[in-house]
Amino acid sequence: MSTQVCIIGAGPSGLLLGQLLNDAGIDTIILERSSLDHVLARVRAGVLEQGTVQLLEQAGAGARMRAEGLPHDGFAITRENDTHRIDLARLTGGKNVMVYGQTEVTRDLVDRRAETGGITYYQADSVQPHEFDSATPHVTCRIGGEEVRINCSFIAGCDGFHGASRRAVPEGAIQSFEKVYPFGWLGILSEVPPVSHELIYASHSRGFALCSMRSMTRSRYYIQCNAGDSVDAWSDAQFWTELRRRLPPEIAESMVTGPSFEKSIAPLRSFVAEPMRFGSLFLVGDAAHIVPPTGAKGLNLAASDVHYLFEGLRSHFLERDDSALDAYSQRALTRVWRAVRFSWWMTTMLHRFPEQAPFETRILETELGYTLDSEAARAALAENYVGLPY
Amino acid sequence: MSTQVCIIGAGPSGLLLGQLLNDAGIDTIILERSSLDHVLARVRAGVLEQGTVQLLEQAGAGARMRAEGLPHDGFAITRENDTHRIDLARLTGGKNVMVYGQTEVTRDLVDRRAETGGITYYQADSVQPHEFDSATPHVTCRIGGEEVRINCSFIAGCDGFHGASRRAVPEGAIQSFEKVYPFGWLGILSEVPPVSHELIYASHSRGFALCSMRSMTRSRYYIQCNAGDSVDAWSDAQFWTELRRRLPPEIAESMVTGPSFEKSIAPLRSFVAEPMRFGSLFLVGDAAHIVPPTGAKGLNLAASDVHYLFEGLRSHFLERDDSALDAYSQRALTRVWRAVRFSWWMTTMLHRFPEQAPFETRILETELGYTLDSEAARAALAENYVGLPY
Repeated sequence: MSTQVCIIGAGPSGLLLGQLLNDAGIDTIILERSSLDHVLARVRAGVLEQGTVQLLEQAGAGARMRAEGLPHDGFAITRENDTHRIDLARLTGGKNVMVYGQTEVTRDLVDRRAETGGITYYQADSVQPHEFDSATPHVTCRIGGEEVRINCSFIAGCDGFHGASRRAVPEGAIQSFEKVYPFGWLGILSEVPPVSHELIYASHSRGFALCSMRSMTRSRYYIQCNAGDSVDAWSDAQFWTELRRRLPPEIAESMVTGPSFEKSIAPLRSFVAEPMRFGSLFLVGDAAHIVPPTGAKGLNLAASDVHYLFEGLRSHFLERDDSALDAYSQRALTRVWRAVRFSWWMTTMLHRFPEQAPFETRILETELGYTLDSEAARAALAENYVGLPY
Repeated sequence: MSTQVCIIGAGPSGLLLGQLLNDAGIDTIILERSSLDHVLARVRAGVLEQGTVQLLEQAGAGARMRAEGLPHDGFAITRENDTHRIDLARLTGGKNVMVYGQTEVTRDLVDRRAETGGITYYQADSVQPHEFDSATPHVTCRIGGEEVRINCSFIAGCDGFHGASRRAVPEGAIQSFEKVYPFGWLGILSEVPPVSHELIYASHSRGFALCSMRSMTRSRYYIQCNAGDSVDAWSDAQFWTELRRRLPPEIAESMVTGPSFEKSIAPLRSFVAEPMRFGSLFLVGDAAHIVPPTGAKGLNLAASDVHYLFEGLRSHFLERDDSALDAYSQRALTRVWRAVRFSWWMTTMLHRFPEQAPFETRILETELGYTLDSEAARAALAENYVGLPY
């Protein structure tokens, strides 16, 4: 087989890149190791920046998001028992974010790809990029038990943190930056109306909490937990009790609780691999970088990578101009690091760290107090939250 | 002897507090362990916030500052070879700072105190506050070889980090927060015109540097040095060579050099003691908190402490209202911590730290790049630099 761009991974970044390329008349094949059902069952982020929204619309996958997604013009930060609203629209001159689950984004992109005849192979085993530093880049895998080789001009590694793409790069060619946070997020999904129509980020002496949602009838709640905690140790009742303790009383009292239908613990990590291009192989999204979920930048960074890579590939194939492709790694990484900084800053400011020096604790308390009080600091927070420009 | 307020320390904070109180008709005695000549020879900070300028004028000590001080509407940050101006006036709606040396401030306050008949005892040995938790607070010392006891209603500890006031507080009554930075500042004074009419903060891979001034014919320059460095190991020629290497070429080439007439190494430390009141004893300025010199907050924080304490003492004596005095520690500390945060942030962002994790280094590089690019982030920097409101 051969194609112009072989995309490894059928998560939102691979599907979005594939759709933009297909719509521009550039041939793609997507290889995904999991089944379609498995991909659609993944529960991930749910807050989209305007740039992400625009890209999804550009890819023809925006109709249901526009109809069912929830535009949010602000969010709240609580500090012990005080509540402060961050008015995103006012602070950014009219920008906002869209609450719409990653699962739904993926489903819309899968549907759109099916409509437009794009090729995706699910349950492709042993996917491996080869010779991306040569004139004959190709990808091998097993599909339905058969060995397959796909010749291509470029390989897009959209296969996440644990995927084969980054691991295919020789060790000496890549530099990694990493920070592991000493806590996790215990998250649940429950078919109850959200406690507020906007997100609530709770800074509390007992630990961080986040009140989020997928719709006006489905809530997504999180609490900071110990790094070593097991999901089994947390009953629904314990979760709700602890969540309520970390919220101002008037919010805690009005919260509707119910059984969870998904419960999991996510570790928190910041990770960046540099560069993001190796010959014909491009890393995209989680394959190159991971952020903690605070501030909801993961999916949005994958989208901005896709934007830069699509611009580069389009110019290469349609205009015989490689300048945007050559700039991909540097352009993507500049934006990646700004979001990594923002996620690290929000995470550090809003969580309680075990074994933190008293000086650091006071500095972080002061940082939060100053941010909430200062118009300039709130404007900086808001512009990062809605997404820095591409 | 007896007085209403016994002030320990005749640095700028003790003198400023004494003058404001004297002018309000409240009786003070100032005790200073050093000689007047020694006090006037101290070389310290030189950038005054508007609040500090206004307090000096309120104390009748502003005339020479207005005539000889240099109002600065902005400053520059260089990043390797790029220069970025922070337009303080535009970013803060018209605020600025005043470059006027602490030595001059002290001299003006000494002159003003002499004019208005305030009492200051220099070379007062073994100054010691007593019984400030009782109805009979007093201070003892030796003046001209004689034991002296000064009965008073209140004691203001304006005697700096190493003074007797904070050390007089029982250990269990005070909580300290401290961060020591793993480098120092090597600073010189030289009778040469400054390389720029505004300050230049230089972030460079070789280390931080600062181009400052005392007047248009007297320059104050600093370079980050190792924590253990000795002044004797740095000749003037070595200093100028290293300073030039850390500046963009066009700045380095236009710099006029000359012999230094003062050269010293300052360690960098953040320190806060809480609370700032113990019965009748109030800690003011460096006696309660120290900041690294980046951002020039030390003298300005002493001034805001004086402002809050003067308000409290004035209300107590003239209006029989203790609410402002009771609020002193909390009001002063709120502003102190914001300036401690700002100084820590500027120091961390602009210096190179030995043994820093690569992730942290990239985060700080990104922080600087973002701050220079974002209007909101520059506005936050500017509002802190000119001084948060009292």
